[in-house]
Amino acid sequence: MRMVDLITKKQNNDELTEAEIRFIIEGYTDGSIPDYQMSAFAMAVYFTGMTHEEAAYLTIAMAESGDQIDLSAIEGIKVDKHSTGGVGDTTTLVLAPLVASCGVPVAKMSGRGLGHTGGTIDKLEAIPGFEYELPIEEFIELVNKNKVAVVGQTGNLTPADKKLYALRDVTGTVQSTPLIASSIMSKKIAAGADAIVLDVKIGAGAFMKTVEEAEELAHLMVEIGQQLGRKTLAVISDMNQPLGYAIGNALEVKEAIATLQGKGPADLTELCLVLGAQMLLAAQAVDNLEEGRQLLQSKIDNGEGLAKFRQMIEAQHGDASVIDHPEKLAQAQYQIPFEAPESGVLANWVANQVGEAAMMLGAGRETLEDTIDPAVGIVLHAKVGDKVEQGDALLTIHANRPNVDDVIEKLNHAFEIKDHAQAPTLIHKVITD
Amino acid sequence: MRMVDLITKKQNNDELTEAEIRFIIEGYTDGSIPDYQMSAFAMAVYFTGMTHEEAAYLTIAMAESGDQIDLSAIEGIKVDKHSTGGVGDTTTLVLAPLVASCGVPVAKMSGRGLGHTGGTIDKLEAIPGFEYELPIEEFIELVNKNKVAVVGQTGNLTPADKKLYALRDVTGTVQSTPLIASSIMSKKIAAGADAIVLDVKIGAGAFMKTVEEAEELAHLMVEIGQQLGRKTLAVISDMNQPLGYAIGNALEVKEAIATLQGKGPADLTELCLVLGAQMLLAAQAVDNLEEGRQLLQSKIDNGEGLAKFRQMIEAQHGDASVIDHPEKLAQAQYQIPFEAPESGVLANWVANQVGEAAMMLGAGRETLEDTIDPAVGIVLHAKVGDKVEQGDALLTIHANRPNVDDVIEKLNHAFEIKDHAQAPTLIHKVITD
Repeated sequence: MRMVDLITKKQNNDELTEAEIRFIIEGYTDGSIPDYQMSAFAMAVYFTGMTHEEAAYLTIAMAESGDQIDLSAIEGIKVDKHSTGGVGDTTTLVLAPLVASCGVPVAKMSGRGLGHTGGTIDKLEAIPGFEYELPIEEFIELVNKNKVAVVGQTGNLTPADKKLYALRDVTGTVQSTPLIASSIMSKKIAAGADAIVLDVKIGAGAFMKTVEEAEELAHLMVEIGQQLGRKTLAVISDMNQPLGYAIGNALEVKEAIATLQGKGPADLTELCLVLGAQMLLAAQAVDNLEEGRQLLQSKIDNGEGLAKFRQMIEAQHGDASVIDHPEKLAQAQYQIPFEAPESGVLANWVANQVGEAAMMLGAGRETLEDTIDPAVGIVLHAKVGDKVEQGDALLTIHANRPNVDDVIEKLNHAFEIKDHAQAPTLIHKVITD
Repeated sequence: MRMVDLITKKQNNDELTEAEIRFIIEGYTDGSIPDYQMSAFAMAVYFTGMTHEEAAYLTIAMAESGDQIDLSAIEGIKVDKHSTGGVGDTTTLVLAPLVASCGVPVAKMSGRGLGHTGGTIDKLEAIPGFEYELPIEEFIELVNKNKVAVVGQTGNLTPADKKLYALRDVTGTVQSTPLIASSIMSKKIAAGADAIVLDVKIGAGAFMKTVEEAEELAHLMVEIGQQLGRKTLAVISDMNQPLGYAIGNALEVKEAIATLQGKGPADLTELCLVLGAQMLLAAQAVDNLEEGRQLLQSKIDNGEGLAKFRQMIEAQHGDASVIDHPEKLAQAQYQIPFEAPESGVLANWVANQVGEAAMMLGAGRETLEDTIDPAVGIVLHAKVGDKVEQGDALLTIHANRPNVDDVIEKLNHAFEIKDHAQAPTLIHKVITD
């Protein structure tokens, strides 16, 4: 088998076999296939696409390119959740303890973030003392004991995907549905999930700009999961405006606490109930979505979700007193209000612009070497569809530098005020096959 | 400027500027743009193509990536001829002296061959003592004195093209019209041609399989040449069957001598007259093609073309006595006839199959490291449209090994005999704009 022939085959839109895809991924992982052939292949895939079968072969080949986590020592059906990424997405911090409080094991491996704001691990790091680097045995033990643990990726997980992702980033081949789908799914499968609930974001702050693109990606991932024997479904949710009010790591931890207390933003709460119900159903802990939703709501109402969060933080050596005293979390030195320049209805919060403003404050990383400041970020005070009065604070900038003119300049282009506007649809679709 | 943005721009089928293309080629030549970005770019070009302007910018950027030959010290309009390559193509050996004998300077830089048979330099090397590595000053002096010299590529000509061609070869991006066109034209322009006559081959033994593909390539090259101020035209000629009768280096030298004596194969002679007349017209040595053709024919008839070949060989220290005594050229040890299995009309000589058979005998190189045996090859005795009788020799194998079963096996699939068949059209089109 020669890589150049496989590139040509894909170029001609012929279907690759499992053996051929395995040859490519194994060769790329061990270095016998050079970057310049892989990037040409990725570009051919960009233009010709892949069948569901090819994408599934690519997924499993990447999942098997490195370590695979064996979660079989954990009792029950292990459901993983994955978001394609957005601005102010704090769902994992809410869902991990909330679903666990319903008796379903949540063995969550999360990553750091690149872009607007931190990843789940960056957010948890805002909690003093929180330990996310646990040996796999301790991780499993914790889940068996408490039903929940959230750790960073350990070991050599999906090295083929890591290498390919870095290559795609510099060769214009990020935006390919089969490559995105297999990248996401290979990580979930290597991390040992039995069932996978996907949150596919659409809009200004997301990879996918339209419902059609998101549906295509969602269908492909569901198909891949099913072909590889994992129950998989996808929720398509809105990311035109940021989710919730908080963007920034400590600020989002506070928001997660508030949400577990039943005082969270409506959209974040709703998304957590929708995704959580799907997770409970996939784990066979409830008979239908409505029952799942009620169970989750009851765990918010009776405080068991928050108690589980407290237990999780303590078990991972974090300072759980931040739950009762959020002011113990890192606080920015300056709180600067950003006022509405006119009265009307907020018609748009361009999520990626708000996200970039937060990144400029230090809430996110532009490159992997950048350091995140947990204290800084942005807190919105109005969402799309809300009435605003001239001079009202639209948001507060939480900064550790006095001059934020650059951030304000960015934010000036991040919203629209009109006479009329409606709150956007949060949940667009649920894709189950 | 970032390469990844330029890749994305091309991916989206947006037109690149001259500065952007120069950035790409300069960066690739100096190594600041890595192979993996260049191969992704080439694959994007494969799918989205290039405008004529982009291809012209690419051509000039590659031409200027290394040394450029200054032929201004040679009086008159310097016309170069280029063939896109085929099997048994001996035209340069005939045309260089023949056109020179008409008073038009021919300063020809040729390459070695990769594939079925040798390049012009490999063929000339079959002449004992022939010296093709001349300093540029001596090359120019010879052309001024004798009107003709044929040398190998000297100096660091089009390093960007060399690097990109090698990369395309292993990344499935050879078959892209703008990349083929700019590769060919950059070499011609760096070699200092004022005018360029292109012989674009089509058929089984050529890169281009259909007249449409060849026309597209021809039009693009003519357009590039004109945009860069070089009079350029293209003849589209047949390469379904080999050109002439001889395939192999010394065998083709003999055929070139015969053609200059007026005893050459009809198709090779005709193609030389067509291309030669275009060269004379481009050099403004004649007023029209018919006059050019007659002038060339007269130089065959009066022996001045052959005398020029003799002068050229002597000037480059070769043994010119091979012209009168072709038996002094390397001869293969075994002459093995290949007989027609049935009677009828020869309906097909699959040029690439015959070429591969010649390569198996040692007439061509599979890799750059292979050594060519000048003596070996194949001499056809019938061409498409000729009647053949069962048991007649269709061709003779000239081999330096007694067992040629592998070659015979290859040749068994290289022809068809039918009840009726016509000689193919040799000249399909002439593209002048």
